[in-house]
Parts: sequence; C-alpha cells; structure tokens
Amino acid sequence: MFDGPATDGPATLEPDPAERCARLRLARSARIGPVTFHEALQHFGSARAACARLAVVAEAEVTREQEALERAGGRFLLIGDAGYPAALAALPDAPPVLSVIGDLALLGRPLLAVVGAREASMAGCRLAGEIAAGLGAAGFVIASGLARGIDAAAHQAALATGTMAVLAGGIDQVYPPQNAALQAEVASRGLLLSESPWGVAPVARAFPRRNRIVSGLSAGVVVIEAAARSGSLITAQRAAEQGREVFVVPGSPLDPRYAGSNSLIRDGAILTRDANDILGVLGRPRPDPQPLAKPSQKPVEPTAARVLAALGSVPTAVDELGRRCQVSAAAMAEVLLALELEGRLERHRGNRVSLM
Amino acid sequence: MFDGPATDGPATLEPDPAERCARLRLARSARIGPVTFHEALQHFGSARAACARLAVVAEAEVTREQEALERAGGRFLLIGDAGYPAALAALPDAPPVLSVIGDLALLGRPLLAVVGAREASMAGCRLAGEIAAGLGAAGFVIASGLARGIDAAAHQAALATGTMAVLAGGIDQVYPPQNAALQAEVASRGLLLSESPWGVAPVARAFPRRNRIVSGLSAGVVVIEAAARSGSLITAQRAAEQGREVFVVPGSPLDPRYAGSNSLIRDGAILTRDANDILGVLGRPRPDPQPLAKPSQKPVEPTAARVLAALGSVPTAVDELGRRCQVSAAAMAEVLLALELEGRLERHRGNRVSLM
Repeated sequence: MFDGPATDGPATLEPDPAERCARLRLARSARIGPVTFHEALQHFGSARAACARLAVVAEAEVTREQEALERAGGRFLLIGDAGYPAALAALPDAPPVLSVIGDLALLGRPLLAVVGAREASMAGCRLAGEIAAGLGAAGFVIASGLARGIDAAAHQAALATGTMAVLAGGIDQVYPPQNAALQAEVASRGLLLSESPWGVAPVARAFPRRNRIVSGLSAGVVVIEAAARSGSLITAQRAAEQGREVFVVPGSPLDPRYAGSNSLIRDGAILTRDANDILGVLGRPRPDPQPLAKPSQKPVEPTAARVLAALGSVPTAVDELGRRCQVSAAAMAEVLLALELEGRLERHRGNRVSLM
Repeated sequence: MFDGPATDGPATLEPDPAERCARLRLARSARIGPVTFHEALQHFGSARAACARLAVVAEAEVTREQEALERAGGRFLLIGDAGYPAALAALPDAPPVLSVIGDLALLGRPLLAVVGAREASMAGCRLAGEIAAGLGAAGFVIASGLARGIDAAAHQAALATGTMAVLAGGIDQVYPPQNAALQAEVASRGLLLSESPWGVAPVARAFPRRNRIVSGLSAGVVVIEAAARSGSLITAQRAAEQGREVFVVPGSPLDPRYAGSNSLIRDGAILTRDANDILGVLGRPRPDPQPLAKPSQKPVEPTAARVLAALGSVPTAVDELGRRCQVSAAAMAEVLLALELEGRLERHRGNRVSLM
C-alpha cells in the first residue's frame, strides 16, 4: 500500500511495518523536524517514497534505537498509530514519533497539564499537589514535564490516579538528577514519553519543544507560579494558541513568582483557586475511561470516512486536513472529488473545503 | 419659589434658605431615609410643603446641629447644592444631607475609592499605600472609610495629594480610636464627610450605608484583601451595581484574606497589580483639576436646561429624572411638555423619555 508513488493511493492511519520503519528513518534524520516530516509525507505520499529520494538515516540506526527502547520496556508510537493521542495528532507540529515507557492506557484518558516554576514556593508546591490530586480523583490524567518544583509536586500527587511525564531529552535520560526516583516511579506506575531520540541529552532548546507536547496532549493547562518571561508563561501562551484552556492560580503582586500568572489572568486566562474551579469549566470526565483502541495492521475504516469525520461546516485547509488524517495529497484529492460528486462537499477559496 | 403647593413651579437645584432648612428638618426626621426623602420631595413639590404636612423635627434641632457643625469648621452640603458631588447625586439613595469638614475642593476632583480588610496583612497595607500614592500622584483623590488596615494605609499615603474619609457615625465621632490622629489629619489636610447627624455614634448598620457613599463618590473601587463574606466584598458588589469599575488585587488561594478578592476577579472584576493597571483602564485625570463651582443662592440655569442636560438618546424614567435634577413631578411635567411642543422630546412606554 505504501510502495507506489504519490498518486498510488491513500496513506492509511495504521502504517505497515515497512512504512513504519521508513517513517522512523525520516523522523530521525537531520534537518527533518515535525513540520518538514508532515510535508515530506504529503509530498511523496509515503515515508518509503520519501526515504527513496532523501538523505535519511540508515535502517540499522532506527533498529538499534528500537531495540534499546524495547529492552527498557518501551515502544514507539507513530502518528497514525491507533494509540497515538488524538489531541496531539491535531497539532500542525505534532511529533512524528514518540518513545513511550509505561502504562499506554493513560494516553486514552482525558488529560490535564500542570506546569509552573522550578524555584517554586512551598505554598505553590502545596497548591500544585492539591490541584493535581483533585483533578486525578475526578478522573483526569496529570501531564507535566518532570522538572523540580511545581512539575514534581503535580506528578507526585497524581501517581496513584495516573500521571504522564514528557521528557525533553531521550526517554533513557535521567533529568533532573533530583527527580531520578520520581522518574522511575512515573515509568513504573504512570507513563514516560519523549519526542527526542534515545540517548540524546536534554539540551536547552528541547524544553520549549517539549512544552508544546505537554499542552498538546491536554484539554487544558494549569499554571502555578509563572514569573515574568518564564518558561511556564510561554507554555501557557502557546497552550492558548493551541486552543487549550488556560487555568492560572493567582498570587500577590508583591511576589515575583506570580508576575506572569497575574498577567495571564488579566489577559483572559481563568482564575483558578482549586480543582473545582477547573472541573466547573471542563466538567468531570466519564467515570469509565475509554478503552484504548487495539493497534491493528489494517485500516479501521476507509480513508473517505476518516476525512468525512474530520470535516465540518467550517472551511478547513486541504493540507491541514491531509496532515490531520495522515492522507497523501493525491489520495486526498481523490477522496474530495468523490465527496464533491456525491454533493456532500463544498469548496472555498484558498484550497479550503467544508461539508455541505 | 418653594412656598406653593406641588403644582406651583420647579424646585431648582440651589434651594433658598427656608427650603434648605426644611430639607434639613425632613432629612433629620425619624423614619425618613434617603429614598423616602426624595419621594416626599417629589410628592409635595418642596421640603417646605412636606414639613407642613409631615411630623418632622423642630427647626431648632437642625439649627443646633448646624451651629455645632459650623463651630467645628464644617458645613452642610444638600443634594442640589452646587458643591454636592454629581456622581453621588445620581444614586437613587443619594444622601439628602452631607456634613463636611475640610477641603471642599476635593469633591470637585476625580475620585477613586480604596477599601479592604481591617485585619489586613503588612503586604496588603503596603499595596494599599503604593496604589493610593500612585493614584494620588496621577491626580485622583482617594476616598475610603477610615477603618483600620487597608483604609488607614490608603488615607495615609494620599494625605499629600488629597484624601477623603467617609464616616459611619456623626462627623464629630472619633472612630476607630486607633485612627484618631489620622482622622484629625484628614480633617485638616483632606476632607471628612458623613451622612449621619452630629453626635450619632457609628452603629453597625451604618457601615454598609456608609460604604455606598464611598463607592458612590468614586469612579471606581480598588479592593485589597477582601475575605469571603466580608464588608469589602459587599462594598465591591454594590459598587458594581452602581456602575463603578471594580479593581481587585489578587492573592494566594491559600490566604483566606483573598477569598473574596479572587472570587470578584473570577466574576469579572479587573485584576489589579498596581496603580498603572487602574490608570490604564480609567486614564489619567486632567492635570488641572476642575475648579469647584462657587455655591450660589440663585439657580445657575433654568430648570429646563438642567433637565435637558440630564437627558440623552436612551429612554430615562421621568421619576428618576426628577430625582436626579431635584425637580418636582409637577414642574417636570411642565418642562417635559414644553420640550415636547418644541419637538425635542420623545416619550416612551413606562413613563420614560428621551431626546429626539
């Protein structure tokens, strides 16, 4: 199915082993970031076709990485895999490949992120713990970045109900050293997740990239103690751009740890005192978490149905639709033409489409 | 002019000495609160006519009060007097009579109220002082209630630029005792103001009534450390009902002194970190404060012009208009008929009128 050129057919959501391997090689190649990955896939129609034309890493390299990951009890999740989180897949810069270790079922449950200062006050850590525990008890999985301070307090409080740590470095990298024990606990009771390749140390520029995944996974982001020009402040702003709800705990204007927090509230974020303030906005998740769809080697439904499901009455760019549905440009053109002939599709300026 | 019955003529804005005396007697009579006062004035056409029909206090009693007030360097301000603050006069329960001691010119300048907890933290008092000083430097007079804590800190910081204390008891009552020196300073450098008669102790029920004057005088109310179910919280809610802007300093959800404050922000009040957050919303007053109009015994302009000035394109209830302009129902009927015949007035359902 993935052998032919771009015009051959649709790239389904669950790639076959050869295509998976090609996607890994593409994703792990130098100068191919998430956006370029998605563009290459659309342009060439498949990762196999892309690998045939581009300078990508050798198959042996990704095989070595996969073996190391599997020895550590982990696995890869590729965009398009059934277990890949839908909210994350909807981002234009969705990670093509995630390394995961731990309880994959957590990815199928509703998620909220709790983020904040590394140099947090004791009061801030207490609030982070209380809010994470309250949200956890209500059924939310707590996602964070495993940093010192607020992140660690949130993970710790949510270990019993479900927590997920998104690492900036490779999934084997223990960072920060103070949280080594917590990282091991999250791996065994929760889930570790990383976009970075195995063995890669967490460099500075990886942290903001990591933060887009923390918020991208989540229905909303809870911010505790974000100073002016802090990483947490930027995470909150990006989360709002991703369409996520931003919940912010206020603090005294005399406390610089709350300068960013208070400005977020002034700019429209939701003032948050406790977990109930969040549950009042988002509601409580269903008591029975949705079972995770079993990975399958076959498409669950035809491409046209996927495209239809992703379409609505609001005009959507065709290229965004293709990225979302992981369908090549050529396959998309075919699907859209069929829908148009059935009188179910309306075309708009700027290569956008909507349902009739 | 005020001798005849209700149908005789317009009650002008600046009452003559006999009508002033009658208004004082009416206002100081048992069971005649502000709303009843305004209703009686409208019903009888003048306070003199009302005093002829109702059981009111003797003239000697208000003369004694006036003499005591004048011996203390004070005077009465009656609604309708040129010096009576316009923002306060617009309230349906505007005080008919104010006792004032100090710099009357402050009433002609833009005002902001700063209110908050008596049992305030040192941080709260520091914020109150910084904000009051900043607003004072920008040209605002600071109004408050001379209570311990936030009120006192705000008055103290604004002594140099202009401050006004609204007392719950009579203007001669020193309360609370801790603030005796501050009260004397506000009387000599700022302005003391009270609705209560001379000699009346500040009883509990007088405090919320007093608070409606603090906010009623002001363009906005700044709230610092309002606990749940606190007086400051109620003041802020009433201020919002009066159409005043409500500015609230946030605090930690772990600090019960900020429980009311944070809920006000959640309900739409403006999160406020410093004076600039307020000046950004309200702007800075003109550098030259408007000179206060000199009190005069004659009407400054005809009643019709006053009514016209109070009217706009939005339909207004005739009785509210009469209260606002201090014009009797009969005189108002005459003015409105004249305007209607000139084609300048439009009538609406529910006895409301607007300009054409």
